[in-house]
Amino acid sequence: MDIAALLTSAGINIVLCVVLFSLYSILRKQPSNVNVYFGRRLATRRDKHVDLLERFVPSPTWVMKAWETTQDEILALGGMDAVVFSRMLVFSIRVFSVAAIVCTIIVLPANYYGQVRKHKDIPFESLEVFTIENVKEGSRLWAHCLALYIITLAACTLLYFEYKNIANLRLVHIVGSAPNPSHFSILVRGIPWSPEESYYDTVKKFFSYYHASTYLSHQMVYKSGTVQKMKDDAELMYKMLGDSLGKSCKPSFPQCCFCGGSTNSFKMISNEMDSMHGRTGYTDRHIDARKKECAAAFVFFKSRYGALMAAQNLQTSNPMLWVTDLAPEPNDVYWTNLSLPYKQLWVRKIATVASSVTFMLVFLIPVTFAQGLTQLDKLEKMFPFLTEILQKKFMSEVVIGYLPSAILVLFLCAVPPVMMLFSAVEGSISRSGRKKSACYKVLYFTIWNVFFVNVFAGSVISQLSVFSSLTELPAQLAKAVPAQATFFTTYVLSSGWASLACEIMQLFPLFCNLFQRFVLRCNDDSMDGTLSFPYHTEVPRVLLFGFLGFTCSILAPLILPFLFFYFFLAYLVYRNQILNVYVTKYDGGGQYWPIAHNTTVFSLIFAQIIALGVFGLKQSTVASGFTIPLLLGTLLFHQYCRERFLPVFRNTAAQVLIDMDKRDERCGRMKDIYNELHTAYCQFSSGSSQSECFGNHHHEESTRANPPQDLETGKENSKKDMSWLPVHRSS
Amino acid sequence: MDIAALLTSAGINIVLCVVLFSLYSILRKQPSNVNVYFGRRLATRRDKHVDLLERFVPSPTWVMKAWETTQDEILALGGMDAVVFSRMLVFSIRVFSVAAIVCTIIVLPANYYGQVRKHKDIPFESLEVFTIENVKEGSRLWAHCLALYIITLAACTLLYFEYKNIANLRLVHIVGSAPNPSHFSILVRGIPWSPEESYYDTVKKFFSYYHASTYLSHQMVYKSGTVQKMKDDAELMYKMLGDSLGKSCKPSFPQCCFCGGSTNSFKMISNEMDSMHGRTGYTDRHIDARKKECAAAFVFFKSRYGALMAAQNLQTSNPMLWVTDLAPEPNDVYWTNLSLPYKQLWVRKIATVASSVTFMLVFLIPVTFAQGLTQLDKLEKMFPFLTEILQKKFMSEVVIGYLPSAILVLFLCAVPPVMMLFSAVEGSISRSGRKKSACYKVLYFTIWNVFFVNVFAGSVISQLSVFSSLTELPAQLAKAVPAQATFFTTYVLSSGWASLACEIMQLFPLFCNLFQRFVLRCNDDSMDGTLSFPYHTEVPRVLLFGFLGFTCSILAPLILPFLFFYFFLAYLVYRNQILNVYVTKYDGGGQYWPIAHNTTVFSLIFAQIIALGVFGLKQSTVASGFTIPLLLGTLLFHQYCRERFLPVFRNTAAQVLIDMDKRDERCGRMKDIYNELHTAYCQFSSGSSQSECFGNHHHEESTRANPPQDLETGKENSKKDMSWLPVHRSS
Repeated sequence: MDIAALLTSAGINIVLCVVLFSLYSILRKQPSNVNVYFGRRLATRRDKHVDLLERFVPSPTWVMKAWETTQDEILALGGMDAVVFSRMLVFSIRVFSVAAIVCTIIVLPANYYGQVRKHKDIPFESLEVFTIENVKEGSRLWAHCLALYIITLAACTLLYFEYKNIANLRLVHIVGSAPNPSHFSILVRGIPWSPEESYYDTVKKFFSYYHASTYLSHQMVYKSGTVQKMKDDAELMYKMLGDSLGKSCKPSFPQCCFCGGSTNSFKMISNEMDSMHGRTGYTDRHIDARKKECAAAFVFFKSRYGALMAAQNLQTSNPMLWVTDLAPEPNDVYWTNLSLPYKQLWVRKIATVASSVTFMLVFLIPVTFAQGLTQLDKLEKMFPFLTEILQKKFMSEVVIGYLPSAILVLFLCAVPPVMMLFSAVEGSISRSGRKKSACYKVLYFTIWNVFFVNVFAGSVISQLSVFSSLTELPAQLAKAVPAQATFFTTYVLSSGWASLACEIMQLFPLFCNLFQRFVLRCNDDSMDGTLSFPYHTEVPRVLLFGFLGFTCSILAPLILPFLFFYFFLAYLVYRNQILNVYVTKYDGGGQYWPIAHNTTVFSLIFAQIIALGVFGLKQSTVASGFTIPLLLGTLLFHQYCRERFLPVFRNTAAQVLIDMDKRDERCGRMKDIYNELHTAYCQFSSGSSQSECFGNHHHEESTRANPPQDLETGKENSKKDMSWLPVHRSS
Repeated sequence: MDIAALLTSAGINIVLCVVLFSLYSILRKQPSNVNVYFGRRLATRRDKHVDLLERFVPSPTWVMKAWETTQDEILALGGMDAVVFSRMLVFSIRVFSVAAIVCTIIVLPANYYGQVRKHKDIPFESLEVFTIENVKEGSRLWAHCLALYIITLAACTLLYFEYKNIANLRLVHIVGSAPNPSHFSILVRGIPWSPEESYYDTVKKFFSYYHASTYLSHQMVYKSGTVQKMKDDAELMYKMLGDSLGKSCKPSFPQCCFCGGSTNSFKMISNEMDSMHGRTGYTDRHIDARKKECAAAFVFFKSRYGALMAAQNLQTSNPMLWVTDLAPEPNDVYWTNLSLPYKQLWVRKIATVASSVTFMLVFLIPVTFAQGLTQLDKLEKMFPFLTEILQKKFMSEVVIGYLPSAILVLFLCAVPPVMMLFSAVEGSISRSGRKKSACYKVLYFTIWNVFFVNVFAGSVISQLSVFSSLTELPAQLAKAVPAQATFFTTYVLSSGWASLACEIMQLFPLFCNLFQRFVLRCNDDSMDGTLSFPYHTEVPRVLLFGFLGFTCSILAPLILPFLFFYFFLAYLVYRNQILNVYVTKYDGGGQYWPIAHNTTVFSLIFAQIIALGVFGLKQSTVASGFTIPLLLGTLLFHQYCRERFLPVFRNTAAQVLIDMDKRDERCGRMKDIYNELHTAYCQFSSGSSQSECFGNHHHEESTRANPPQDLETGKENSKKDMSWLPVHRSS
């Protein structure tokens, strides 16, 4: 491949992007697409009419909007996770702008004039002339070593300040946010079964004895399979208790009667269970309800510090019983998993890890199969009946040119949902936890399948044998990576840029919408599920490109300008999506930053190891010698960051929570908060179907309908997050 | 080597052991050796006179005594750690009795008749005939597979019940023990420096604000380098304050005046610092004292639960500041490390790990050198001036037969002190923590240097290359281990049994004692330091023999009877040592069991991997197929034990501590406990020299003299551990 071809490819991709982005800027203005491109606005029910004239003219307003939005606005609209994602892009832009400048000035000339050869005109120059392969053996390679130093130092400095800022931001966000029910609540699992008592009483007894000073109340988790039955029971009870409870509860809200939502009939029963045992008619139902209780409960405390204390300690001498964790946010709870017996979880975790690894390895089969499709003669031998079809030129072109990539894309589309399924099976108690776990899995999968499988292209066995000889790995990588650098450059061009165009076009929802409108002829504007940001696919994608950038930076610096442009575009596109498309229902608290940090440090170290291998191959001992301290320094930096910042992402500091408690006490808000805690966690809400749809990861959050009607404007929502305090209570 | 030779070797070793044990039974009765063999009795000052007639007749009374002692007595005398060590031996005896029976019945005949060959008379049969090497390729090997199953199942079952029992015992021990000051105290490090306030005030302000309901008081840690100066200052102060404080403090106890030991002059100053600022004469000294404060303090709480809460949580949003840990027991505190800045610790940890690994690898040099000594011709070539000396037969015999092992033993003796030094540099806050860390290091070192270096005997490089090809490891092990099985059998005979004889003879202290008595002519009966049990050398030794046993069990079952006898002897010897020699100054709480458990599981898995390799070499696919589920099952078992039992060893359950708090409150003991907390931790005691002696690990605990005068009888000591509550207080 020569420069001209690369530029042509880049040109095609740029034109494609421009066309798609223009198309987007038109499509987004069509009222019929409002539920595709303005999911957030739909959720907040803020309609805005656009002039008919403007509607069909492409305009860059969205770019301006995305560019101008401040970090505070992103934080208000998308929560910490969105900010962290945006910081990842900012970090990438910064570090790759440094890398691009350094490598263009220092490394590119060193590569180009690395060997005494007759250079062609630059447009017809092969791309390999610009890679380190062009440098002859025995050179000093000081330019590459210096560039590696500059890039590593820049990356580490930027990483340090980003980590520091995000840790600070997380803190400020926690302190500044309104009272959050999750701060006062813990989730208890593994409640011991006793034949005499219900779980409810066991929990009550345990916490009012051992945490008497801080325990407030609690709420059981019910088996999710029995949802409907419980609802019926509750309605019946509601009717029976209706008279005695007066008219304060609205009969039109049957959905929350269980966990004490709008009506408190069942809560009352549960709370006053002992006093009611005398009355017949309820007793049977009680036994019924008892059977439906899980060995899990939400326990509410009088202070944030009390909840933290109860959550972080071993409760009893059997670590499998009374397992406490800080509760997730109400919208973040993954109810299906709460009813799992805690004793199963360790097996599930092991099984999930095993399945994920198997999946990663088994995935090589379609890859090899797809690669095999390009060799028609083999295919004809295997399936003789295909011979006639394949002899037609059109068919063979389709098979060779289209089928392999189609199969691969098809299989790749299956990865995030499968990983999401694994993470759900694993037993996360929160949706954000599940997404984070899926993010890890997709990340490992992507880096393995895009990078390693391409670098060591070949059969499954040859890839495994690479990992069996660890000492030869750097040398093998040093041989393989520069050879694949051209591929990675085109990968950034095609896959990277195209993925952004697809992301902003929202192809799948767009087609669904068109299908609904023009085939099903149903003009219902309300979508059945607003989307939440697919961090588990987008974070790995961005990190993969960062990984490619670092590993290729000094080997094939031509990748860097394209990468820089990718990150810049991604910055605009994702900010636009956060502003307009995705609805934030819960906040993961910026837990993606440690992933990004670790991956970046891994990328740096990996780049240094490859550099070591390359310097070894080129017999440049000085450069090798200088790389080793850099490697050790990077490892030390990583360890320092782990010690200094990571605990802040794992736990909230006691000081912060106590300060918040004291502030609320001074304001006299505590009473209100206690009152509203009971209604915060609502297991059975209307429209919730417990059979989650893992297939389409874009819709995975849609099951927790119960649309946040309080999201009047996004900014208000996050800043004054009192939304979980309903105005009308019934007691 | 044939059976006769092995038996001869065994016979020699048995005779040697019998002679040494008889010698011991005589020596122990000599009054002059009482400080060698009855260090514990010396510490408890219980003298017992023996008839002159009995003194020179060997007697097995010590064996009877060691055998009859119950676990409760061991617990009372030696604490949890001694019990755990004794349980390790019991477990080993049990599992290797099962293994010996199974392997003798099933595996030995299968090995012996593994090939159609003419057998010699058994005494002249080569030992290799009894190993798996005698089995011809293509055999079914079901006997070996079955034996592996039985051994693994027996080991896992026994491990499970031991873990359960020890976890229970630990719990009962905690609950049953008297109020322990360490339960009420935490150690705070990384106190932030402020120019306006002393550390003392900073701590006071922080804890009385954030832990107001549970905070009691605190005590600073002082820089250890300034000990003497502080003492002088304190004495001066004592004199100045003497009048105002009355005569309640004893002037003869200057050692504890700092931390509020016997006199409370300095404590008073510190506590009433603010009120005294007006008076001149103290102010300068205050500034002085402030300079000597470290950024570390012991903070005392009103309840055990309060201390646990404060200890286990992130205090502030900077994880490097206000680092809290549960305080070690007063006698367990490693004061020197408390004054280290907390920010250094992560670097120290990394440096220690790096040094330990380097030490392990560098240790190969003396090993190779020692091996090189056996090749005289090479030596002569290297050092031509030695030629004449080496040509004498006697000298060459010495060089070949004696020097290599002498060099090795010399180097091996240096290992535990070096590892202890590493662990001290690492920054453990407690002596038990330091010993546990050293135990890990010595364990890795021993297994690496005894097993792997012997198995892959050869140059350093060939050993490293083994680990670079991971997939071939089982096959290589399968080839190498059976070949070395004979060596390991003789190793058990010589090194194992001999080490026990040396342990009971206490050679080094005995010679010191003799030297002191007959050369220095000093008949002082009081030894300068009583010994504490060297867990960091003995635990790895026992675990190493277990490791050898498991790995060789089905390959060369002849090792098992010898090993069984070793463990039986070790059981008697170590119990005797715990009863008579070693003094327990602090209790590590049975933290050695998880090490033993993990090592045993590792040994099992390693044995299975080698078995897999062997089955592969012998082309027995059925046996290989059956081994894989066993391997997975063992891994699952390990994970289950980690989940079920390990947290109990890491943390104390809140329930347990709250129950203890409530019990003490009911008894009205709390006030007494609070009063005595201040005097519990005493940094500067008489005779403490801060320059620790790492060189001789036997004496490493001797620096914390301050002999436990309350150990009237061992049993009372542990059960009624109110010893830290001095009877006479001065306020």
